[in-house]
Amino acid sequence: MSDEPKAAVSDLVALKLKSGEEDRLLAGHRWVFSNELQEAPTDAAPGALAVLFSSKGKTLGMGFFNPKSLIAFRLLSREPAPVDAAFLRDRLEACLNRRTRFLGENTTAYRLCFGESDDLPGLIVDRFNDVLVLQVLSAGMENLIEPLIAALRGLLNPTAIYQKNDHPSRALEGLSGKSGPVFGSLPEDLVIEENGLKFKVDPEGAQKTGFYFDQRENRRAIWPFVKGKTILDLYCHSGAFALNAAKHGALRVFGIDSSQRAIDAAIESAKLNGLEGKCEFRVDDAEKLLAEFSDTRRNFQPDVVFVDPPSLVPSKKHLTKAMRSYVKLNANAFRLLRRGGIVATSTCSHHVSRGAFIGMLREAAAKAQKTVRLLELRGQAMDHPVLLTMPETEYLHFALLEIG
Amino acid sequence: MSDEPKAAVSDLVALKLKSGEEDRLLAGHRWVFSNELQEAPTDAAPGALAVLFSSKGKTLGMGFFNPKSLIAFRLLSREPAPVDAAFLRDRLEACLNRRTRFLGENTTAYRLCFGESDDLPGLIVDRFNDVLVLQVLSAGMENLIEPLIAALRGLLNPTAIYQKNDHPSRALEGLSGKSGPVFGSLPEDLVIEENGLKFKVDPEGAQKTGFYFDQRENRRAIWPFVKGKTILDLYCHSGAFALNAAKHGALRVFGIDSSQRAIDAAIESAKLNGLEGKCEFRVDDAEKLLAEFSDTRRNFQPDVVFVDPPSLVPSKKHLTKAMRSYVKLNANAFRLLRRGGIVATSTCSHHVSRGAFIGMLREAAAKAQKTVRLLELRGQAMDHPVLLTMPETEYLHFALLEIG
Repeated sequence: MSDEPKAAVSDLVALKLKSGEEDRLLAGHRWVFSNELQEAPTDAAPGALAVLFSSKGKTLGMGFFNPKSLIAFRLLSREPAPVDAAFLRDRLEACLNRRTRFLGENTTAYRLCFGESDDLPGLIVDRFNDVLVLQVLSAGMENLIEPLIAALRGLLNPTAIYQKNDHPSRALEGLSGKSGPVFGSLPEDLVIEENGLKFKVDPEGAQKTGFYFDQRENRRAIWPFVKGKTILDLYCHSGAFALNAAKHGALRVFGIDSSQRAIDAAIESAKLNGLEGKCEFRVDDAEKLLAEFSDTRRNFQPDVVFVDPPSLVPSKKHLTKAMRSYVKLNANAFRLLRRGGIVATSTCSHHVSRGAFIGMLREAAAKAQKTVRLLELRGQAMDHPVLLTMPETEYLHFALLEIG
Repeated sequence: MSDEPKAAVSDLVALKLKSGEEDRLLAGHRWVFSNELQEAPTDAAPGALAVLFSSKGKTLGMGFFNPKSLIAFRLLSREPAPVDAAFLRDRLEACLNRRTRFLGENTTAYRLCFGESDDLPGLIVDRFNDVLVLQVLSAGMENLIEPLIAALRGLLNPTAIYQKNDHPSRALEGLSGKSGPVFGSLPEDLVIEENGLKFKVDPEGAQKTGFYFDQRENRRAIWPFVKGKTILDLYCHSGAFALNAAKHGALRVFGIDSSQRAIDAAIESAKLNGLEGKCEFRVDDAEKLLAEFSDTRRNFQPDVVFVDPPSLVPSKKHLTKAMRSYVKLNANAFRLLRRGGIVATSTCSHHVSRGAFIGMLREAAAKAQKTVRLLELRGQAMDHPVLLTMPETEYLHFALLEIG
């Protein structure tokens, strides 16, 4: 293991913006697109460290340059500085301090680093007890993998670091898709704790890095509304919403997901928490099932419905069709419920703005001809901070609704 | 005291909409504006009960008609029904049930009814222990004051009901401005509890109905960020944010407000909670003081700043100027803080949308040249529900920000 970054300060590439293109960066954004660069050396290695100048020669900062990517430059620092294990450790320590204050003392699983929002462009680090799972989404960060591992080991002394490389963004940066351990080896059984509940996680086999931390505080938001209630958890994944409901007094919880692996994990986690007696998890098509329930073709009426579908918007061109699906899904949930029923609903697509999310729910309320009260509007968990000046860092919206 | 409403079913006015004007109502809105009515009897008494028909003669619902108001019709019910003390009691009981599940058992002060959002157009009811404070903002509701008092007494057995009539909306409905008790009499000393803190309240003398319940959950949101910190609470009113910080481990809390009455209440409440040792409240100009601190003309740098200004937007035409003030205020708060500092900031104007609020904060971040992370975006408290299909019911936005 070496502390030497592959890209040293001596390799710095000089980049110059076209006239007027510095405005977004000066207003706090962190990216430069390839068409905004005046001079772009095509022979630079992907992810090379670069200094960015305005058209008038003003230094704007230092970052990663990738001639192969539409996002040609990612800002790492407004002030040029040597980028080594010590630099990375400082940034990661800031990530840790940022999270220590809002995560409870018993929380040992969370997103430690959320890329651009944490001043480390293209780096996602999830912590599962003593195991770290990395997603490296920029060529620049991939070049720094060795000092990065050194920094993480120095800061957190993990037993294993696993690099998960299946995110589609990697291809846009010209990076390969092979995942695997980069330090130590993953334990056989990994059980984390969140909101006082235990969850079996499998970072190697599961979707994304194995658990969705981004709804942690939203799962707490449903606690006051589940006591003595029958819950339907649609798109339940590994059961985190469902088990929060079961623990906080729900009478019966039904979880539906299309993934057998997710359902198996949910069943196992229910047992880990002694909640299997009130939980039923099943592989099924959530959308179809809800439509059937709403049409009363099946005789089932819950008090509370969770609607947390996967992103239905793979790209912007799918948005109109996806919004129609979201409207239908939520309208069916509203129709299903009696007066006083609760719907906790989300979208997790970068292409759905908060305004579009609210507009979609409004349309669903009109379609269902129901009075719908917004009790609480929330976003992604606090370990996924949103950079105010970079809207791309926001992707999750959550609403707690009462059906009147 | 009589259970008979002044306006009985026999007095119903028939109203017909112009062609196509039913769309908004059918999509879940609750108002009809005067220019949308086809036939409006000018001799009807303000607030008369009316049945609304579409241009094609379809019954759309029953509500209050006021020929003197721009909001000519306020929907009370989609199905015509006798409006009496029993009707009002049913609606108020729904309000109570709605709140019981999310308010802790020890909470005896909250907004019991939030007008249109609670299916009682133009009626605000705040509960302070056994005292109820009404704000009646529609002529229709004013006509029902007697059955309303009967319903409230039957449901809650209050010791006093006070009607606060100083809201400017009353004039738009042709209603007078005289406040006073309508049942019983207010106690000399009224101490409520919120978030485990005691507050001296004075519904008769204070702004609005005496206490701002609409930030209850937002005051809880700051708890994890105040331990061991120095706090500056700008526009502190009667000290609710400040005392939440003091109770949850803040080292020192400085509260500033322009109102002597508010500062006196804050000082008294600090003593009630045994927190006077770490709190200092002072009458001053918050905006001016912050500008001085930010320019380092005074030597004071807190760790956490609360910015909760009164509405700076009395009407839509003041919006541009007000947004400039909000940007300046927040930029000064951002500039004042060190790395890791926290700003909890709000707007409480109907004219500032959530999108405009975020845009304003983004502009402030750019102006201050600071990295600003959005940790949590929240809205008005859950006892001020937002009717999804009626954007006018939403007015408060709150952001928890970390300065990077």
